[in-house]
Amino acid sequence: MSLLVVGSVALDSVETPFGKEDEVLGGSATFFSTAASFFTPVRLVAVVGEDFPERHIDFLKARGVDLSGLVRREGKTFRWKGRYGFELNEAKTLDTQLNVFQHFVPELPPAFQSSEYVMLGNIHPDLQSKVVDQVQSPKLVAMDTMNFWITGENAALRKTLRRVDMLFVNDAEARQLAGEHNIIKAARAILSMGPKRLVIKRGEYGSLLFDGDHIFGLPAFPLTDVFDPTGAGDTFAGGFLGYVARAGKIDHPTLRQAMVAGTVMASFTVEKFSLERLRTLENREINERLATVKRLTHFEDLGDATRIV
Amino acid sequence: MSLLVVGSVALDSVETPFGKEDEVLGGSATFFSTAASFFTPVRLVAVVGEDFPERHIDFLKARGVDLSGLVRREGKTFRWKGRYGFELNEAKTLDTQLNVFQHFVPELPPAFQSSEYVMLGNIHPDLQSKVVDQVQSPKLVAMDTMNFWITGENAALRKTLRRVDMLFVNDAEARQLAGEHNIIKAARAILSMGPKRLVIKRGEYGSLLFDGDHIFGLPAFPLTDVFDPTGAGDTFAGGFLGYVARAGKIDHPTLRQAMVAGTVMASFTVEKFSLERLRTLENREINERLATVKRLTHFEDLGDATRIV
Repeated sequence: MSLLVVGSVALDSVETPFGKEDEVLGGSATFFSTAASFFTPVRLVAVVGEDFPERHIDFLKARGVDLSGLVRREGKTFRWKGRYGFELNEAKTLDTQLNVFQHFVPELPPAFQSSEYVMLGNIHPDLQSKVVDQVQSPKLVAMDTMNFWITGENAALRKTLRRVDMLFVNDAEARQLAGEHNIIKAARAILSMGPKRLVIKRGEYGSLLFDGDHIFGLPAFPLTDVFDPTGAGDTFAGGFLGYVARAGKIDHPTLRQAMVAGTVMASFTVEKFSLERLRTLENREINERLATVKRLTHFEDLGDATRIV
Repeated sequence: MSLLVVGSVALDSVETPFGKEDEVLGGSATFFSTAASFFTPVRLVAVVGEDFPERHIDFLKARGVDLSGLVRREGKTFRWKGRYGFELNEAKTLDTQLNVFQHFVPELPPAFQSSEYVMLGNIHPDLQSKVVDQVQSPKLVAMDTMNFWITGENAALRKTLRRVDMLFVNDAEARQLAGEHNIIKAARAILSMGPKRLVIKRGEYGSLLFDGDHIFGLPAFPLTDVFDPTGAGDTFAGGFLGYVARAGKIDHPTLRQAMVAGTVMASFTVEKFSLERLRTLENREINERLATVKRLTHFEDLGDATRIV
């Protein structure tokens, strides 16, 4: 089934305690579409500048990503520079140069307007809303957001939230958006803002899915070497929606499986810098980790376990 | 099967953002034995002072806890005073009065020496070792510890660790003990110190079990109202070992189920102050939550989920 992502394609400069890379391929739409492409064909809408290396275009094409919505504008490509501390939980942004991204207004090629599954990457909520205007009868529209929009564009964000089916956020964003520390209460508050489904990503602590009244909790994939968390959230969403689009249905059992797919794709991403791990990733490795997550989480029924005193 | 716990019985004064209680029933052995008593009979070894209220003795007796190892000494009962902030993740200790606990040397009544399952509560590692000296041929000896012993009595702690089968610690303690931030690496380092099994408790983020080469991850029970986290770790261990002792076996599937029992018992404890929630807890409620944890965590096989590009 058709999966569309609208977001950023960027050149990232990242520093972690384990190394440093300058101007490597990054951006929410890049990570998302690469991860999703392991499950389903993806359509990408984004903007790059004149300086965007052709080899990155070739890479995405080789992954089967439809780039007919990737426009090249006069000027430089969006650049982000960040640093992670030893705990690897949150990046400190050192520099952001929006460049051509500053005047980005997403326009869907006609062939993309019938996309059934849609991911609105982390851009201005008004632009996310403009994408919703352009899709005809999607089965599922999901979005990402961040603290910057929660504080700075709250009204616009609330408006967009009312128009989508699903939200991906991390712990801190969920708490901030809901104004509530307890994560279960925060989730319920967010579900009352519009989206019927919510994924809360908690880094090394795993993730939670709220789907109507259902809650599903999943630990993170156990990793001994976490190298660079950049793109983990976008590849989670990419694995999730890639799996959903491939299944062609959004019933609750499928969404649980999609959480597993998201967890596994994020686990690969963080093992190397940028998209490096995904470049060499094989289907076999993905399927192995999907099976490992089951061994990590399942247990036998306890039945009636108590005694009478 | 016989389950023995050695630890503290205390009077706690606790302050949380939701209320304040003075001199309520507390202590690691109290929380542990109460939780375990829902699964199996428990034997308790601890010390209290002359001022320890008889009604607390009556409560433990009513829970079927064998108190023939509870000694009453001249002086006052151990007192702990703590405060939790809004995030409810760690208590700030405001005051500790060891009182009769200062000269506590655990002595097992002869009938307790054949106990098959043993929990060494959070006391000086040398005293934990003295308990190991006194049990004849236990099937499983588990222990708890804390930052105070990890820094102040590291050599003694390492010695005790070599003599036990299992350790319960929280995230921060695991990292501190191993001198390693990555939690999987930290777990492996701890398993090389002696215990073949390790439970890492992560509060609202759930828990991890390491059993030889097996890893099992479990989210926390989803709660909208967390009132007082005091005793959560001890009731986790009590539910865990109570379940194991009831099953009478320590194979890997049983330990996974025990994680569920521990998670559920801890989830009740934190809903009210002190042991209040456990006082009114019914077997039916426990069994309901055991079933809920399965619904929270299980998913259908994904099979071969990837596509060929």
